[in-house]
Amino acid sequence: MTTIKKVVLAYSGGLDTSVILKWLQETYGCEVVTFTADIGQEEEVGAARAKAKVLGVKEIYIEDLREEFVREYVFPMFRANTLYEGEYLLGTSIARPLIAKRLVGIANETAADAIAHGATGKGNDQVRFELGAYALRPDIRVIAPWREWDLTSREKLLVYAEANGIPVEGKRGSRSPYSMDANLLHISYEGGILEDPWLESEETMWRWTISPELAPDQPTYIELEYRCGDITKINRESLSPAKVLETLNRFGSKNGIGRLDLVENRYVGMKSRGCYETPGGTIMLKAHRAIESLTLDREVAHLKDELMPRYASLIYNGYWWSPERILLQQFIDSSQNTVNGVVRLKLYKGNVMIIGRRSETDSLFVPQMATFEEDLGAYNQQDAEGFIKLNALRLRIKAMNNKMR
Amino acid sequence: MTTIKKVVLAYSGGLDTSVILKWLQETYGCEVVTFTADIGQEEEVGAARAKAKVLGVKEIYIEDLREEFVREYVFPMFRANTLYEGEYLLGTSIARPLIAKRLVGIANETAADAIAHGATGKGNDQVRFELGAYALRPDIRVIAPWREWDLTSREKLLVYAEANGIPVEGKRGSRSPYSMDANLLHISYEGGILEDPWLESEETMWRWTISPELAPDQPTYIELEYRCGDITKINRESLSPAKVLETLNRFGSKNGIGRLDLVENRYVGMKSRGCYETPGGTIMLKAHRAIESLTLDREVAHLKDELMPRYASLIYNGYWWSPERILLQQFIDSSQNTVNGVVRLKLYKGNVMIIGRRSETDSLFVPQMATFEEDLGAYNQQDAEGFIKLNALRLRIKAMNNKMR
Amino acid sequence: MTTIKKVVLAYSGGLDTSVILKWLQETYGCEVVTFTADIGQEEEVGAARAKAKVLGVKEIYIEDLREEFVREYVFPMFRANTLYEGEYLLGTSIARPLIAKRLVGIANETAADAIAHGATGKGNDQVRFELGAYALRPDIRVIAPWREWDLTSREKLLVYAEANGIPVEGKRGSRSPYSMDANLLHISYEGGILEDPWLESEETMWRWTISPELAPDQPTYIELEYRCGDITKINRESLSPAKVLETLNRFGSKNGIGRLDLVENRYVGMKSRGCYETPGGTIMLKAHRAIESLTLDREVAHLKDELMPRYASLIYNGYWWSPERILLQQFIDSSQNTVNGVVRLKLYKGNVMIIGRRSETDSLFVPQMATFEEDLGAYNQQDAEGFIKLNALRLRIKAMNNKMR
Amino acid sequence: MTTIKKVVLAYSGGLDTSVILKWLQETYGCEVVTFTADIGQEEEVGAARAKAKVLGVKEIYIEDLREEFVREYVFPMFRANTLYEGEYLLGTSIARPLIAKRLVGIANETAADAIAHGATGKGNDQVRFELGAYALRPDIRVIAPWREWDLTSREKLLVYAEANGIPVEGKRGSRSPYSMDANLLHISYEGGILEDPWLESEETMWRWTISPELAPDQPTYIELEYRCGDITKINRESLSPAKVLETLNRFGSKNGIGRLDLVENRYVGMKSRGCYETPGGTIMLKAHRAIESLTLDREVAHLKDELMPRYASLIYNGYWWSPERILLQQFIDSSQNTVNGVVRLKLYKGNVMIIGRRSETDSLFVPQMATFEEDLGAYNQQDAEGFIKLNALRLRIKAMNNKMR
Repeated sequence: MTTIKKVVLAYSGGLDTSVILKWLQETYGCEVVTFTADIGQEEEVGAARAKAKVLGVKEIYIEDLREEFVREYVFPMFRANTLYEGEYLLGTSIARPLIAKRLVGIANETAADAIAHGATGKGNDQVRFELGAYALRPDIRVIAPWREWDLTSREKLLVYAEANGIPVEGKRGSRSPYSMDANLLHISYEGGILEDPWLESEETMWRWTISPELAPDQPTYIELEYRCGDITKINRESLSPAKVLETLNRFGSKNGIGRLDLVENRYVGMKSRGCYETPGGTIMLKAHRAIESLTLDREVAHLKDELMPRYASLIYNGYWWSPERILLQQFIDSSQNTVNGVVRLKLYKGNVMIIGRRSETDSLFVPQMATFEEDLGAYNQQDAEGFIKLNALRLRIKAMNNKMR
Repeated sequence: MTTIKKVVLAYSGGLDTSVILKWLQETYGCEVVTFTADIGQEEEVGAARAKAKVLGVKEIYIEDLREEFVREYVFPMFRANTLYEGEYLLGTSIARPLIAKRLVGIANETAADAIAHGATGKGNDQVRFELGAYALRPDIRVIAPWREWDLTSREKLLVYAEANGIPVEGKRGSRSPYSMDANLLHISYEGGILEDPWLESEETMWRWTISPELAPDQPTYIELEYRCGDITKINRESLSPAKVLETLNRFGSKNGIGRLDLVENRYVGMKSRGCYETPGGTIMLKAHRAIESLTLDREVAHLKDELMPRYASLIYNGYWWSPERILLQQFIDSSQNTVNGVVRLKLYKGNVMIIGRRSETDSLFVPQMATFEEDLGAYNQQDAEGFIKLNALRLRIKAMNNKMR
Repeated sequence: MTTIKKVVLAYSGGLDTSVILKWLQETYGCEVVTFTADIGQEEEVGAARAKAKVLGVKEIYIEDLREEFVREYVFPMFRANTLYEGEYLLGTSIARPLIAKRLVGIANETAADAIAHGATGKGNDQVRFELGAYALRPDIRVIAPWREWDLTSREKLLVYAEANGIPVEGKRGSRSPYSMDANLLHISYEGGILEDPWLESEETMWRWTISPELAPDQPTYIELEYRCGDITKINRESLSPAKVLETLNRFGSKNGIGRLDLVENRYVGMKSRGCYETPGGTIMLKAHRAIESLTLDREVAHLKDELMPRYASLIYNGYWWSPERILLQQFIDSSQNTVNGVVRLKLYKGNVMIIGRRSETDSLFVPQMATFEEDLGAYNQQDAEGFIKLNALRLRIKAMNNKMR
Repeated sequence: MTTIKKVVLAYSGGLDTSVILKWLQETYGCEVVTFTADIGQEEEVGAARAKAKVLGVKEIYIEDLREEFVREYVFPMFRANTLYEGEYLLGTSIARPLIAKRLVGIANETAADAIAHGATGKGNDQVRFELGAYALRPDIRVIAPWREWDLTSREKLLVYAEANGIPVEGKRGSRSPYSMDANLLHISYEGGILEDPWLESEETMWRWTISPELAPDQPTYIELEYRCGDITKINRESLSPAKVLETLNRFGSKNGIGRLDLVENRYVGMKSRGCYETPGGTIMLKAHRAIESLTLDREVAHLKDELMPRYASLIYNGYWWSPERILLQQFIDSSQNTVNGVVRLKLYKGNVMIIGRRSETDSLFVPQMATFEEDLGAYNQQDAEGFIKLNALRLRIKAMNNKMR
């Protein structure tokens, strides 16, 4: 193994990554650059600066990536109505490629030869960070301390922290029993009692949304305006991508929207159980399907639906920066040129209900076609006979053959 | 056109099909056999007998097909987590192949040479009836009066009915403004103000479910037991397929579950707007995914998800009796051998929440794999490095090539 | 039916379309504009002018579309390695959208309200012409005489021709027993003894290629240079698209390459048997796969392969001008940015053999990776263990579960 | 690492696996069971017995697996018209799951706790052996000496062999410059000058087939009879599966059929170049498509074509024993019930030409449908208009919308 001179660490400022910071300095004898991003996790990122300084870091990067995160990652993903395994909105997965990109970017800027992250060897995040990094800089070195060190239990970690003067917040045992991840799209929970998939999650676990039971008795009505598949206005007010998501998170959280309790299949081969809160994303998915239902050609919509599970797996598995995801994205993005219009929704105690959709410019809904009233020749019902007869032809030939056998 | 001697009519006993009955007798001078099925539409099918007799019908078939409907059509479809265009549970579509099968069966039993139905020339149902019939009896003749006659408006139909002594229920204009279809799986609404997709549906339209706002303030908890992908017990009580669906409909309706307002793409080429109530089905979809999440191999689950949109289109478009649907069904059914276990759900004001799932025999969830605690060697974190490195190899080679250009 | 004022006819100058020309004038009392295209069918298109004049046509369009045909239709299709049903190179299908486009274009230029073509009601070509026309001009009227008139046999056609002074070439019965179609990509044969799929085609049927048995005993070596997936040079000489195809046709024909005898599934629901000669196209398919094998990422290549059958069906079924084909094309075209390099082939008595491929700029083949010799650390064989272990994890968990049951 | 007591080695009797045998005994101090299979590689498997005995092996398994290989692996794969990356017939890949199954089977029979193989850490075969073994016995230990030892060059291997008294056949350097693999389906070549994909392979490399140039000037005609998608008779003679493949290999080899020169994408992430001879398989693929073209429903055939690339990748990547391959196989096998009939072919200097196909029982080819002559009402050409009109509807609505914008 060649020596490492400088490593860029994805640094939250928390206990784990602080221990990693120290461990990297000790184990590799290298300089550490810290990178802390605000992607909407609702933690004070500024505090990371002081902590990093104390640990002797000279190059400290703290960046507000919220707009880039929503504009370049969240919005493109929602154009595909993306769901992993039919339910998961990929809140964790979609943030990782952005972090990978900045880790590599900062490594290039600071002439570092390696990056490091705090993801364990059992999860998907290690894969997402590392595939992203390798795709963007093929000669990058990656250090994943959880796969290397012997701090294999919480207890050992705390011992190491105390021995190295790393402040441990709160008393031992007072911390959350869950492993959490948050960004502007979602917050997730794993571990603790969730490790038994038969046990119901505790109400106290959920941090972002109110429970449907406690949500207001009055529904909230909202109007979302789409341009090329992205929301540009809420209730007629123009908003930046991150503001769109923040606003929808607020509406969703207040109305008990977006909780999910799931057993999912990890890329590394095991099943795990996670709970997720994705209030704004849950609204976005439903609304996007509604505006597409009016403005997208049937076969384009069906093709998107058939490709979606694969696209979702690519994101879940960490292939955001792969050539196949990029090509699929072009396909998806092109399909959105006509996805313009307005969707009206009603939010109520966990429910997202579509109550109307319109598009001045791109509606393919032709009322005089579908009407049960006289259509004045817009549609010739006699055409249906030939349509059915020829679609039936192969079935009839096969049935005749069956009969003769 | 050769003469028709005897035709089997899908007969509801209502105004439209009574007019058709008369019109067939007059236009084709043929004998009419009526077929009325109870598939859970919650109308009195017995009344059809008297009406048919009055119109001179000698062979009258009235059949209770509820168990067959759920066992042979609804349950198989739910094994695939089937959704058309991401949202529609195919309540209307799935009943048609059964009707087609019995129309042909009765035609064979009564030596009839034709069948007739009351579906219009604009919709999907004509296609479903006719493709089914042709696939099951390739030489059958099909009469679709709505594509042939000149009774092209409601007004003309009523005039014809009165002129022919067909009783018109209620006063003119008092009937529902919606075109409806119902069976044990769902009830649907089309037409009326729904023809403008921007207008909100009226609360009075919904017939099966209570609105979430009016649903009870106390949640309902239920336990569903699965055997090979089908629900066999609810709250530990063994139930037949139809009873399962009836029971879930009751739970769902009471809790405001299963309303859907949709613009969909018809097979005949136009978009139309429909509103659907599928209370039991909405619960079944969510619960089935939950039990699969525990018991199905990842790649099998993903393959099912990728094939599902096509399978859904086959059903929506009327290809239930096609060889490709039958083959896909075998694939889907085989995948369900391990889908055994119990799902626990909470129903509350429109929400279906999974709160637990377990399988004594088929769980692929291994707690000691996924745990954040010491796993005693169940999983070797070092393996992840090679896994990532080789998955990254092609990305790195491509990136190196990009750099050199 | 509203009146038709002017119709643009796809006119070959042959007997059938001359009869159609006359029949349109008589039946619809409308003006006929003729459109004759040179798409490489190797017939004298100029002769159509005199014939049309004799029949009283005032607006006569004769166009050389060979370059456009290859550049905008043939080349894009070959970028996808397109094969219908595993074998057919779509020689007829790919020419139809161009004809449809020009028929509509000329209708617009001449203020015509209809188009007409000479395809029968049994085949795919009617669908291709008409779907194309409707997609490009939704209000166009289409006249398909073969579906309308009563000239349902060859005999009746000849009687009509003679009665209307339309010259019948050669004596009755001397014409080819096959229905043929030709353009720069291929020539096809249907009908005659081919209607029995057990009978071998006659050697005299084949018009373009020499039989492998009679092909030269010396192989021909050629070098094809690709730029973005298209051939731009043959044996280092720059050639236009049509010249590329002409040249490859020459090489192929001489070496007995490109014959195909096939039973295929028509879009209208029946099976039919066709024989095809596609000498240049057969070479192009093989060579394109070779250059892609060197320059395309694995997953992009696999995704293309999975989408190809659907893309092929879209072209076969006449959906060239559909939004889904256009989107798929963008996907395919984007994938070709790196498909640059040179392929070396050996042509010999029906065989197309790849003997070498290279790309200075885009090769993803890294000799030191694949080598059986020392690779100096380019690849770490230990990585394979983790790669296999984690890919095996779900299989092992499943197997453990099976064992315990 | 826990100790290994007994290991089953896939043993060819050649130098490499003899070195491995010795190395296992020395390194792991464990007993070695050898397993040598005749899968048609045309080497004397009996010789392995003596060699193993000399090396002290007590349990020696030598098995003739040719019939099982063709019946349970090759034939099922050909039912899917399987090609990896459009060209490769998967000759190596398809033998590995059988070897894996027997390695595990013998481990169970001999109470061994591990298996070992001679595949390198760069190739696909290690993955195929190991995924198979883990799927069949999840707790099996796998030893892959090439990934562990330091005999990283040919030279070191020879030194080790001589030092340990392992006979080295021929003089150093006289052996083939290629890495080869053979079984009843194919022989493959890698390495040597093939590592430069621009260089033409040498004529002397090819061992099984005569070159097209040297093949007979007279074609060979053969007739293949299919039952449920498998060949059961050649030229009307009933043959076992292995005899079928042997016979076709003979016909193919004699006629210069089945050579392939390919750059392929390995599962481990690199591209490599291989040359393959698959004489019988090349005939089988072409003939199978021909009998399917007559007897398979269009949509079933298309669905098979769309799933094929994924099925091929599963086999190539080593997932034969995965649940998803097994499910896909059931789908494929079910589709073959009607694939019965006879195909007539002409073999000539590298060409496989279909000249006829028939099926008494299952032909879906209806001559009176497709005919250009009078069809007596078998097909109503007027139906085509409605078919086209409704298929065009969405295209026209979209075009109208485009126009209005």
